[in-house]
Amino acid sequence: MAESTDFSIQIPSSNLPRIVLIGGGFGGLEFAKALSDKDVQLVMFDRHNYHTFQPLLYQVAMAALEPDSIASPLRKVFDNKKNFYFRMALVNEIIPEKNMILTSIGKLSYDILVVSVGSKTNYFGNQDLMKKCFPLKQIPQALDLRSNILQNFEKAVLVNQPENLRALMNFVIVGGGPTGVELAGALAELKNHILPRDYPELNFKEMNIYLLEGSSKLLGGMSTKSSDHAIKYLQELGVNVKLNTIVETYDGRTVFLKDQSTITSNTLIWAAGVTGNMIPGFKPDSIVRGNRIKVDEFNKVVGYDNVYAIGDIASMATQDYPNGHPMLAPVAMQQGRHLARNLNTMFGKGGKSLKPFKYVDKGSMATVGRNRAVVDMPGKIHFKGLFAWVVWMLIHLMYLIGFRSKIVVLLNWMYSYFTFDKNTRLIIRPYVKPNNPVIKNPELEKIVTGYDTPV
Amino acid sequence: MAESTDFSIQIPSSNLPRIVLIGGGFGGLEFAKALSDKDVQLVMFDRHNYHTFQPLLYQVAMAALEPDSIASPLRKVFDNKKNFYFRMALVNEIIPEKNMILTSIGKLSYDILVVSVGSKTNYFGNQDLMKKCFPLKQIPQALDLRSNILQNFEKAVLVNQPENLRALMNFVIVGGGPTGVELAGALAELKNHILPRDYPELNFKEMNIYLLEGSSKLLGGMSTKSSDHAIKYLQELGVNVKLNTIVETYDGRTVFLKDQSTITSNTLIWAAGVTGNMIPGFKPDSIVRGNRIKVDEFNKVVGYDNVYAIGDIASMATQDYPNGHPMLAPVAMQQGRHLARNLNTMFGKGGKSLKPFKYVDKGSMATVGRNRAVVDMPGKIHFKGLFAWVVWMLIHLMYLIGFRSKIVVLLNWMYSYFTFDKNTRLIIRPYVKPNNPVIKNPELEKIVTGYDTPV
Repeated sequence: MAESTDFSIQIPSSNLPRIVLIGGGFGGLEFAKALSDKDVQLVMFDRHNYHTFQPLLYQVAMAALEPDSIASPLRKVFDNKKNFYFRMALVNEIIPEKNMILTSIGKLSYDILVVSVGSKTNYFGNQDLMKKCFPLKQIPQALDLRSNILQNFEKAVLVNQPENLRALMNFVIVGGGPTGVELAGALAELKNHILPRDYPELNFKEMNIYLLEGSSKLLGGMSTKSSDHAIKYLQELGVNVKLNTIVETYDGRTVFLKDQSTITSNTLIWAAGVTGNMIPGFKPDSIVRGNRIKVDEFNKVVGYDNVYAIGDIASMATQDYPNGHPMLAPVAMQQGRHLARNLNTMFGKGGKSLKPFKYVDKGSMATVGRNRAVVDMPGKIHFKGLFAWVVWMLIHLMYLIGFRSKIVVLLNWMYSYFTFDKNTRLIIRPYVKPNNPVIKNPELEKIVTGYDTPV
Repeated sequence: MAESTDFSIQIPSSNLPRIVLIGGGFGGLEFAKALSDKDVQLVMFDRHNYHTFQPLLYQVAMAALEPDSIASPLRKVFDNKKNFYFRMALVNEIIPEKNMILTSIGKLSYDILVVSVGSKTNYFGNQDLMKKCFPLKQIPQALDLRSNILQNFEKAVLVNQPENLRALMNFVIVGGGPTGVELAGALAELKNHILPRDYPELNFKEMNIYLLEGSSKLLGGMSTKSSDHAIKYLQELGVNVKLNTIVETYDGRTVFLKDQSTITSNTLIWAAGVTGNMIPGFKPDSIVRGNRIKVDEFNKVVGYDNVYAIGDIASMATQDYPNGHPMLAPVAMQQGRHLARNLNTMFGKGGKSLKPFKYVDKGSMATVGRNRAVVDMPGKIHFKGLFAWVVWMLIHLMYLIGFRSKIVVLLNWMYSYFTFDKNTRLIIRPYVKPNNPVIKNPELEKIVTGYDTPV
């Protein structure tokens, strides 16, 4: 494949050492930004041509933001960087013995490899869940989910049998972490403010939103205080929160719980965990719990001299975090910047010695809905409510990439705040959920997906 | 199908006469807005759940606007309307003898039928063109085109053979009407300001934009003065305008012209004309030139008592327009409002007599790029340049539906004006152009389409 005469990877060779970076998520982006462009050649791979601002992905799925607002074209981000090459491709394998990677567009050698491939949805090996749930890690998935929710209601005005109506109007979210909590809150706001105006023929008392969490608390990484407030907020909005509730399996229509009870629903959103998005080629003893790569305090992969890993995929055991840091954006960003500075030192003329990574926990937060958020700060400071919500918004705006995105998102939030409206309600995805048991008419299915082939 | 026990169309019967409206384009939207909701029941069908503001569709395709900015969810537009029902469905056939329509979700009877189904891309019967060109009438098509353009450049940095590079970097637009002119201008701005920053490895002198027009002038409906200015503007921007040039066919790689010459290009955008989007069921003698429905001066379909047609699909022969009005948004909007007022009179307590339709031509305009537009006003008033461009923007903002869209579009335009940037550069469409001759590697194809199945 790499030897095709039609195309090849085409990175010019230079006298500079070549750093190959796999992944344009939070870690990869910060790494590439902070890396000096004088002393090294940087080749960045991502399977998308854009960076996704994942913390706001749920707002795309819930019709509050447009996808372009939270996506930054990677080439644009690095427009001014010298000795920088971007390639949109999948990296299939690494061959550390040869200092080489194999990609969908050919092979490439490196002097230093930085693996920042992040994590993917964890279905714990259950194929049914994998095939029939909606995950929420990428923009196309957010658009699929948004279209599916709206399509459910377009179908609901047509169904004759109560059981079919129930399946369309029940929504089950699995996983009580920030994504699950934020999704449940946003879906409840759609139910409370928007959908009844759009579908006056339906009785929205029959719309149920379930948030299922396997452990005994929501927002596992946060304080008990914040967790309790999140439950209270969700209940105020009408979400049915079920703790200590484990999903066994799902057939696309019925959610089977471990306690033998069931919930009828066409829509199961799976936010119950992530696992490392491993690339084949690492020695088995470099791979640890959660499908992550074991790194030392310099983010160097254990067992290799010139391979580094940062972000969700990297597991650095420290005194505070014996099983590795939490798989969160701030960790990835700090590791990316830190590694870049170490490599700048290594390849620059400085000659200062390398510094070990130390995670600075600036706190964590989650939002449930308008005026409802929880924030934990270091030093056991907690706050909640309107102030926490404003802080949450400001911090997300601050980290969003690009002036246009910041302004457009702020404007959308202001609009939603004053009108109680969410405006991005297009059904545009072609994806048809397989085995939809409610309506078997393919013509109708084609219509409610809103898909037009150009043919 | 209509008798399915799973689902049915479910419009409640009432004492009010039922008006069935097919299509939520400019004509249908204005009709539904202006129709009184006291005296009639209105059932609106569209295959999308949104109205598309088509005049700005080319800006979605050219990475300047996000799709939601130019799409208005139809249910939201009519949130406050009484006796109103929306159904997202395809209307397959009308049976005027039975006062009934057959749709993908069942059959429905009407007292009055209003057909506002608009027009579709006209390939003049050429199957190759239909299969291999990019049309631009709908939002999914605009996103496909945008993704394809960006994918072309992601591939261009990989190709080894000059002929393949040429195919990727040549763009051919067929049709010199407003859509073709506006597309060519916007693509030239991408070439001049944005793409070279994103793809520094490519030589953009090798990117060619062809605008092919079969007749001897661009903007056929406009004055010679405006047409000449449009050519001058396009040439300033570097577009290769070819008048009197007819496309014979296209194999996905080579455009074959009538004069026996060819152009190598992977991307042929077809904006060479439209034809009525006819629904089966009309008597043959109701159908006239251009696949349109013959209507009298009240927009009543000739040969029927209770069937009306408005907009592009309606052909009303008048002294000024013996072959029917031009297929333009202003005609559709005026006809929609006019028909609604006539029906309000008919069903209301007024009892005033019905008024014949008279088109008020307020002029026409087209934009080529920043500071470059042409405007024709009634009374042979023409203007061009910066002032025309500002007028063009203000009028489009005025007609855009919804406060949020107006503000977001204005903001994007201001951003682009000051930064020379266009920011919505996501590759998100799953559509893979068939028979792409450059790269046959399906793995790569899957990547450069950016499509992730949720599975």
